[in-house]
Amino acid sequence: MTEPFEAVLEVMATARTIHRYLPDPVPEKDLGRILYAATRAPSGSNSQPFRFVVLRDGERASAAKALLAESFRSQWSRKSSNEGWDRGSGLDRDSPKARSARAMRQFVDGFERIPVVVLACILRFHPPNPYEGASIYPACQNLLLAARALGYGACFSVWHLPVEDRLKAMLDIPEHAAISLTITVGRPAGRHGPLRRRPVRDLVYDDAWEQSAAWVQDPPGSRFSRSGPPGARRFRPPSVAERDLK
Amino acid sequence: MTEPFEAVLEVMATARTIHRYLPDPVPEKDLGRILYAATRAPSGSNSQPFRFVVLRDGERASAAKALLAESFRSQWSRKSSNEGWDRGSGLDRDSPKARSARAMRQFVDGFERIPVVVLACILRFHPPNPYEGASIYPACQNLLLAARALGYGACFSVWHLPVEDRLKAMLDIPEHAAISLTITVGRPAGRHGPLRRRPVRDLVYDDAWEQSAAWVQDPPGSRFSRSGPPGARRFRPPSVAERDLK
Repeated sequence: MTEPFEAVLEVMATARTIHRYLPDPVPEKDLGRILYAATRAPSGSNSQPFRFVVLRDGERASAAKALLAESFRSQWSRKSSNEGWDRGSGLDRDSPKARSARAMRQFVDGFERIPVVVLACILRFHPPNPYEGASIYPACQNLLLAARALGYGACFSVWHLPVEDRLKAMLDIPEHAAISLTITVGRPAGRHGPLRRRPVRDLVYDDAWEQSAAWVQDPPGSRFSRSGPPGARRFRPPSVAERDLK
Repeated sequence: MTEPFEAVLEVMATARTIHRYLPDPVPEKDLGRILYAATRAPSGSNSQPFRFVVLRDGERASAAKALLAESFRSQWSRKSSNEGWDRGSGLDRDSPKARSARAMRQFVDGFERIPVVVLACILRFHPPNPYEGASIYPACQNLLLAARALGYGACFSVWHLPVEDRLKAMLDIPEHAAISLTITVGRPAGRHGPLRRRPVRDLVYDDAWEQSAAWVQDPPGSRFSRSGPPGARRFRPPSVAERDLK
């Protein structure tokens, strides 16, 4: 059973969030395989409350992408200004901070030209709660991994939230469904590559909280995010995720 | 790029929820690889708010498993009675319903002997909200897929919730962390195998809500859950997920 594990781990460890996309359309054969993979995820009582609305270049899809683009641009403007992305080392064009900011700018400015945008919707059988995500975000992760396995890149975001009501009206998404995540998909303009994460022993405990798990380790070649070991510290790339949304 | 996709899809499509486990311990080498894979998942701003507390047979772990077992048994008793699992076709020992109920009974009755129980915790930087799961459930799905790729089975549950406060006290889990999911891991007593899901066109839309996506299809050999095409309808197995928790 080693072989499938190696393939799966390789895909997981290199599925970097992609902000810069080539304009090439995603062939329908690949798109179908990616979405089928998404729907294999578990959900509460196997109730499968996830629904994926795929936006490409249809009339309504284009209008929805334009609205999303507007929201993404204003979210990034707010975030970059609040967090000082154009200050400090951001003034040095070659700094990781400035490069990340440029990628984000390209991401939001070119949003309408990203070939595929998927709205991951959840049918809400219960009032919104922090556990409902257990029935939709595993499916989103399947989507991301399947895309990566076929050579595509993806990015998760909740920057649709400020325009969710308008999007729902535009796309006939019913009252009892909510948009849990916006996922962009396309061929990466840059490279896939190893992710940066904290050292694994910061994240995994044995027996009780903060009890070191001697049996887990970062394999050779692992790359570390900020808060990694000294020397491995690097600026943390910007993101488009729920904790940014006030 | 076809090869990794095939491996990844195979793992996704056969990572059935496992309720019956062999008592064999999970070797630390495998456990370390599974947990490392979990931590490769994306999260908001790459903030990695996920922490995994692994319960095996240490003193505190055993006490925590006993407390969880108590909670799981009372949740299943309540659910099986509310949903009539011992009525109707459940009276026929050979019905899928009765078989599923027996697997659930074995699951909760043998909970203490499941070799590995992982508490997936989230550091809450914000008040609880339906989007926080985007920063933890993708990591849980990585864990499940990595386990499957190594031949292990897993099950997602939120049946820890009634005893969460006591668990946190027992394991020194701090105030600002919450337990998002309990994940059991071990060698399956039965077989892995193809998942049952609704027909994919019920779940994937093109351009707008309920607009059929002609380019997605169930590959030959797909198996359908209840609400599948006529003839493919089967009783839906019981679950241990968030929508069961009142």
